[in-house]
This record gives sequence, C-alpha cells and structure tokens, in this order.
Amino acid sequence: MTKSIGKLYGIGLGSGDPELLTLKALRLLQSAPVVAYPVSDGGKSLSRSIVAGYLRAEQVEVPLWYPFKLNQSSQPFYDKAAETISAHLEAGQDVVVLCEGDPFFYGTFMYLYTRLCDRYPTEVVPGVSCVMAHAAVLGTPLTYRNDVFMVLPAILPAEVLAERLAVADAAVILKLGHHFSKVYEVLQKLGLAERANYIERATMPNQRIVPISEVDPKTVPYFALISIPSQWQPTD
Amino acid sequence: MTKSIGKLYGIGLGSGDPELLTLKALRLLQSAPVVAYPVSDGGKSLSRSIVAGYLRAEQVEVPLWYPFKLNQSSQPFYDKAAETISAHLEAGQDVVVLCEGDPFFYGTFMYLYTRLCDRYPTEVVPGVSCVMAHAAVLGTPLTYRNDVFMVLPAILPAEVLAERLAVADAAVILKLGHHFSKVYEVLQKLGLAERANYIERATMPNQRIVPISEVDPKTVPYFALISIPSQWQPTD
Repeated sequence: MTKSIGKLYGIGLGSGDPELLTLKALRLLQSAPVVAYPVSDGGKSLSRSIVAGYLRAEQVEVPLWYPFKLNQSSQPFYDKAAETISAHLEAGQDVVVLCEGDPFFYGTFMYLYTRLCDRYPTEVVPGVSCVMAHAAVLGTPLTYRNDVFMVLPAILPAEVLAERLAVADAAVILKLGHHFSKVYEVLQKLGLAERANYIERATMPNQRIVPISEVDPKTVPYFALISIPSQWQPTD
Repeated sequence: MTKSIGKLYGIGLGSGDPELLTLKALRLLQSAPVVAYPVSDGGKSLSRSIVAGYLRAEQVEVPLWYPFKLNQSSQPFYDKAAETISAHLEAGQDVVVLCEGDPFFYGTFMYLYTRLCDRYPTEVVPGVSCVMAHAAVLGTPLTYRNDVFMVLPAILPAEVLAERLAVADAAVILKLGHHFSKVYEVLQKLGLAERANYIERATMPNQRIVPISEVDPKTVPYFALISIPSQWQPTD
C-alpha cells in the first residue's frame, strides 16, 4: 500500500485586514489540520494575528522562526522550517503556511516552496498585495491605461532608486524602515515628493497615514510604503 | 429632513476564479441593492460571469456599456455610466460596481470614481491582481528580496519596452492582444525569451498556458500576459 503524503499550501492572507482574505484562502485555512506561520524574535506572529478569528482549536499550530539580522544567512533557518513542515506532510497531514500579502511577491513562503515543491504536491493561493490595497485605503487610483508601473524595495542605493523612478509613470517603494530619509531625498531631487503618499501598515488595525513631509524618519516601520500614483488624467 | 444618499463601492473581483473574491467583496456584493458592471459590445460581461453564483434575484443589475474602439474617446460613455449610477445613489440606494482584478490598478472603475467620489461616499475594495495570481498558477515565484519589479502594458513602443525591461529584475507585460509579436521580439533581443512565461486568462475557466515559443500571435487575447520571474536564487 502506498503511503499517502500531505499537501502543502502557501496561502496569501492579503495586506492585513482579515476581511481581505480570499474565499479560497479561508476554505483551505479552515480545513487544514496543520497551520504554520513565521514568528519574530519576540514570538509574535503578524500572519497568525490576521487569521486569529478563523482558526479552530483542534488545528495544530507550527510556529516557524526566521531571524532577520544583518550579516547572517537565513538559509539554515529555512532548512529547519522545511524539515518541520516535511515531517507533517510525511505523516499524511496537509499543511497551510500563512503568508502576509501574496506568497510569490516578495514573500517568505518562496524559501519553503523551493525546498519542498519537488517532493510534495503544492498549491499557492494568491493574495491582495499592499501594493494594491494601500491605494484603496488612500482613495487614489494608482495606474491608468499605458502607465509603466514599478515596485522598488527601499533598501536599493539612492542612484538606483533615482534612475528607475525617473522612468516610471507610477511606483510603490516598499519596506521603508530606516531607509526613509534616503528615499525621501531621492523623491525631492526628482520633484516627486509632492506627488508621494506615505502609509504605514495599510489595512491593519494600526494603519497610519501621515503627510510625507511630516514623517519622523526615526519611527518608520518596515511595513511602511511610499506610493507615487500616476499623473494621467482620465479625460481622454 | 436631510435626504439620504447611497454609498458607492468599487469592488475588485480578483483575476477570474470566483473563489478569489475577498470576504469583504462578497459581503458588500451580496448586501447591495444595485450591482453595476461593464458589458462588451455583444452584451456579455466578464465581471458579472465571475460573480454569477453569488448574485441574488432581488438585486437590480445595471449594465454599463463602454465601447473599446480606437480613435474614439470613451469619456462620453463614462459620463453616461456615472449619470446612471448617480440616479441610484440619489435615490438612496448603495451601488456596487464590479471590477476584474483590482479597481485602482489599470481598472475601468477609476473613470467612474473620479466622476463620483466628490459627490458620494465611496469605498474601494482591493482585489487579487492577475499580476500576482498568474505566478501562483504557474508555480513560479515572481520577486525576491531586493528585486526591481515592473508592470508594462504591451501597447508601449518596442524601444520603451526594451529600455525598461533591461533594468528590471522581474516584470509582467499586460494586455498582450495583437502586440504579442512585438513584445516577443523585444524579449528575444534582450535574451529574456527563455525565462519568459505566457499565460492566457489566469485563473479563469478558459485559462491556457502555452510555451512562449509556440504561441500563435493571431490568437492572443487581450487578457494574456507574459511574465519574466526573478532569476535570484534563494540560497543566501
């Protein structure tokens, strides 16, 4: 008799509001015997907090710990997380891995995916990215018609940011944290600062919208973004 | 006594699979007395077909007709659609406008939004864009870590596409239609054709994945896209 193995699901939770889960993500989340999610050093899990109201008491929860320190490879920790998940899959249990936003768009799930997708049946459920969700919150259309749109991580050097932004019709700069001042200076040099919006933790309970000129660079969280919406006027 | 007016909702339906609606989109869709959606020349509505299973018989349906002809401004048709919706809002009825994908990301809803948002309370519900959803279908992570990501409409001139793609780590080229051959030639010149994926109508019932070298340029639909995933290897 062939041993039955479990199926691995990477499900996008969306940008933070629990109501932005898709129907598919909710169905798979609630039917899985095992739910795994990243936890930070302090043991907190943002992704678990998003779905806390949907979890069932009988589900096995598997916290996965990834350190986010500079000058240290995270790869051994992904190896270990993949091993932990693998044990459940080998035992025939389906495992849902939670991912904020979309799993394949700057997500941590892809490190598990590349380690496990050849050995186990795997399915990815896309989610609402903060790249789109923040525009809904701000009430600002992001891209029209023939616009060139870019997503840039804030960690990039100022010259790279400047070169790319100069040829974008609309853009989102992600993962601001302590890179805010560098990014803001680039925007000022390019004459883009007045068009730029700043938002922290879009759609989360502690969401915060601040005029970009009033942001205190010392308090900018990782989940803050700047967006530069298209200037195109919808009149033709 | 103040007359009560209705609220306008622009809801993203996601990329085509009805299960990719968010919980919020479904709640608002099912509680609205009036549901409006774009219809094509033949009277068909893609967005209505996505939510057909969720609509209730007592809901008033309002088809909005936008012509998509070259050399003709669509603006008078958006004016008329806004007027139609306005009449329901003035009568105190909430109106949900359906949008494939995300309403503020290359969506048609923004043409109604800019006409109506100053006069009526308005809320936008973001959706799962095909930009993310197609990667889940293909099982191909799209962007890692510090990647620069771009979205380019296929209608852009070959030189613009080539210049932008040359400095992107990952990219999605949208709205292919009869622009396929031009785009494919650009990818071949840049040495990107072998990394490129082609997919039609990702997550829709008639989804189709074809090796890019086997695509018949004469049959490429508007809802086809090419994606060039990041080459970054998740090993450090």
